[in-house]
Amino acid sequence: MKRLKSSDPGFAKAFARIVADRREADDDVSRDVANIIDRVKADGDAALADYTARFDKWTPAGEDDWRISKDACEAAFHALAPELRQALETAADRIAAYHRDQLPARRDYRDDQGVRLGAIWRPVDAAGLYVPGGRAAYPSSLLMNAIPARVAGVERLVIATPTPGGQINDLVLAAAHLAEVDEIWRIGGAQAIAALAHGTKRIAPVDVVTGPGNAWVAEAKRQLYGTVGIDMVAGPSEILVIADKDNRARHIAADLLSQAEHDPMAQSILITDDNDFADRVADAVGVELAQLPTRRVAEASWRDHGVIIEVASLDEAPALANALAAEHVELAVADPEPMLEAIRHAGSVFIGRHAPEAVGDYVAGPNHVLPTGRRARFASGLSVLDFMKRTSFIELDEAALAAIGPAAVALAEAEGLYAHARSISLRLQGNAK
Amino acid sequence: MKRLKSSDPGFAKAFARIVADRREADDDVSRDVANIIDRVKADGDAALADYTARFDKWTPAGEDDWRISKDACEAAFHALAPELRQALETAADRIAAYHRDQLPARRDYRDDQGVRLGAIWRPVDAAGLYVPGGRAAYPSSLLMNAIPARVAGVERLVIATPTPGGQINDLVLAAAHLAEVDEIWRIGGAQAIAALAHGTKRIAPVDVVTGPGNAWVAEAKRQLYGTVGIDMVAGPSEILVIADKDNRARHIAADLLSQAEHDPMAQSILITDDNDFADRVADAVGVELAQLPTRRVAEASWRDHGVIIEVASLDEAPALANALAAEHVELAVADPEPMLEAIRHAGSVFIGRHAPEAVGDYVAGPNHVLPTGRRARFASGLSVLDFMKRTSFIELDEAALAAIGPAAVALAEAEGLYAHARSISLRLQGNAK
Repeated sequence: MKRLKSSDPGFAKAFARIVADRREADDDVSRDVANIIDRVKADGDAALADYTARFDKWTPAGEDDWRISKDACEAAFHALAPELRQALETAADRIAAYHRDQLPARRDYRDDQGVRLGAIWRPVDAAGLYVPGGRAAYPSSLLMNAIPARVAGVERLVIATPTPGGQINDLVLAAAHLAEVDEIWRIGGAQAIAALAHGTKRIAPVDVVTGPGNAWVAEAKRQLYGTVGIDMVAGPSEILVIADKDNRARHIAADLLSQAEHDPMAQSILITDDNDFADRVADAVGVELAQLPTRRVAEASWRDHGVIIEVASLDEAPALANALAAEHVELAVADPEPMLEAIRHAGSVFIGRHAPEAVGDYVAGPNHVLPTGRRARFASGLSVLDFMKRTSFIELDEAALAAIGPAAVALAEAEGLYAHARSISLRLQGNAK
Repeated sequence: MKRLKSSDPGFAKAFARIVADRREADDDVSRDVANIIDRVKADGDAALADYTARFDKWTPAGEDDWRISKDACEAAFHALAPELRQALETAADRIAAYHRDQLPARRDYRDDQGVRLGAIWRPVDAAGLYVPGGRAAYPSSLLMNAIPARVAGVERLVIATPTPGGQINDLVLAAAHLAEVDEIWRIGGAQAIAALAHGTKRIAPVDVVTGPGNAWVAEAKRQLYGTVGIDMVAGPSEILVIADKDNRARHIAADLLSQAEHDPMAQSILITDDNDFADRVADAVGVELAQLPTRRVAEASWRDHGVIIEVASLDEAPALANALAAEHVELAVADPEPMLEAIRHAGSVFIGRHAPEAVGDYVAGPNHVLPTGRRARFASGLSVLDFMKRTSFIELDEAALAAIGPAAVALAEAEGLYAHARSISLRLQGNAK
């Protein structure tokens, strides 16, 4: 963990290094991924069988075994402990409610020239959600990806998830049941993204692919962007906690560790204006770590990427926050509202002393798929818009065309596009058959 | 040009071939582009100077020559013929009006559990617009990219445009003046995209890069996606005209040619229910072509990619249109409204007999940057949203955390994320210091 003071002469340089630290492996997997995509395009299901045997060390018992049935998902859901089932339902309901309110409205109006203009939002026909296998197979991620697609009105919801060694995560199946997923395919990696995008004999192609994954999955999404829509490329998670001394140090320590436990490359940063409080949080992190089952990961993250920045005044915090453009920002301060306005670049902001980021990971409602690695400068969290597209429309009658047509003719001729001009001028003349 | 009849036994197969025809060159430029990006990252302005000398055959006279001044843009604007200046102003005003109405609203509400939720949309800090050099340097494209960025509230608007042999397009400068562009850099190709994304000593980096370009530009955007935001990867233009026999054949012929003249790879498709009308349009295309200054391009496009499909009834048209998911769709029919509803996949729809697509290219208001190559299945035209991003926020007080916190604790523990659970349960206990 690094301790910095904004009043130190070397601060600007040290802070710039933190901002520049991408914490993303520059694995050059692009060639491998291109080969995998080509192979899946050419050989379809046979390629999937090969890759699944090789990477997941698993071979299905028969044709039916490639899919996990809806019945299996329903059974997994009903087998949950009642408390957990209820928690999953609470999460699903609240996520659905927040995302329903995101649905964009149709526009349809006539302007003062008599031109009718508008736009219609519609869902894509089919969405594919990638769910990683093993440790990172989170039911909460499934809900956060599937529910916005459902709310958007997507008719066909497909999951691809690897089952290494044949292992299936029951909690993920239960979430799939709750989110009314239509198909679950036991495939993973770049080959799964290729199959979703191009389709195989067994798997019909989808229009949009979302969901987290490793470097291969991310690169496959990048290469297939344009063949399908994708969500933002994501890197390791991060949190910026802005806290004054009136917080309990252990609360803030737990918040910092809740990011750290995700990934050794995750980053937790505290900005505070109190030296004593900073010490107490650092100590509390140690105390919490000692009893944390995820200690190995959390400790590595905090050691290698953790930062505590002491500022002379919390007024300095928004500028630092904007430079960091963090995925998560907590405002555990007495007067958070001006800070909410001043922080321009953040994936999600958690306001007040009673809003730990983890609430947002599960049950608050807003999406937990958020831009990482300073991408909050230009990117947004996942939303229903990622599963929809907009068709604009234009209607003119003779009078409207007479009003605005001549300007279009002048511009088309200036650009040397004469058929463009003709398509308007012939109608303006109104006498040619 | 192909003539198809939907009642012919071979129609399904022939139509499927048209749908599958991507008309996009699979130039494998990814290695070249990766090298260019690496070189610009490493050597900055020196790399730009080398590439500009090599690809654009131009070397600036001095440091100032890298930029085109705002004064030069203003002078170009005032040097325009009054009719053209007015046309440009009409276009700019109408584009601005349509896009202002796209601005998303802030959400901020408290739900029945006492949780305050919301989302704030904000513009990115800086946007880079690519404007191709030479023949494809369209002032209308500059307006269509720059105005949404301005309307979104972007503070810094940067253009990169190559000036091959030192040639500058005055109409583009005039449009840049009108759109209040802040900087114009005389660089092009993948090296320009790399400079915008990573920045150089001379050029500060931007957050989003949009605008059309060749295969190198498109591949550079794809590779830099994630470092910056980008708009959709675009291919050759296309139009689908659905027309009954009560149209004038020459109007429809001109509409088809207005796409064809863009690019030999562009595609124009007519669907009609009248054999005689189909013949008359085919003839009229010949007549129009004979006198078209852009004949060479338009003729090649119509010959290689033009299609006329005769259907038994126009009721068949929406299903065909959805399979094609065309960039532009004209509904030159007596009752277009049901068709507007039935066509789910289209970039922009032009309604009625007096709405030639070219009106939308210049002055109607909606954006003319639209998804091509069947991408209307999942992508939308350019909008203010491409230059904005959303920050969600969550506020809880003690009571709200008590209401929804326990469900989050249950889920976090089930996922094995214990620090997540602790960050909530410590606060719920409320007694630890």
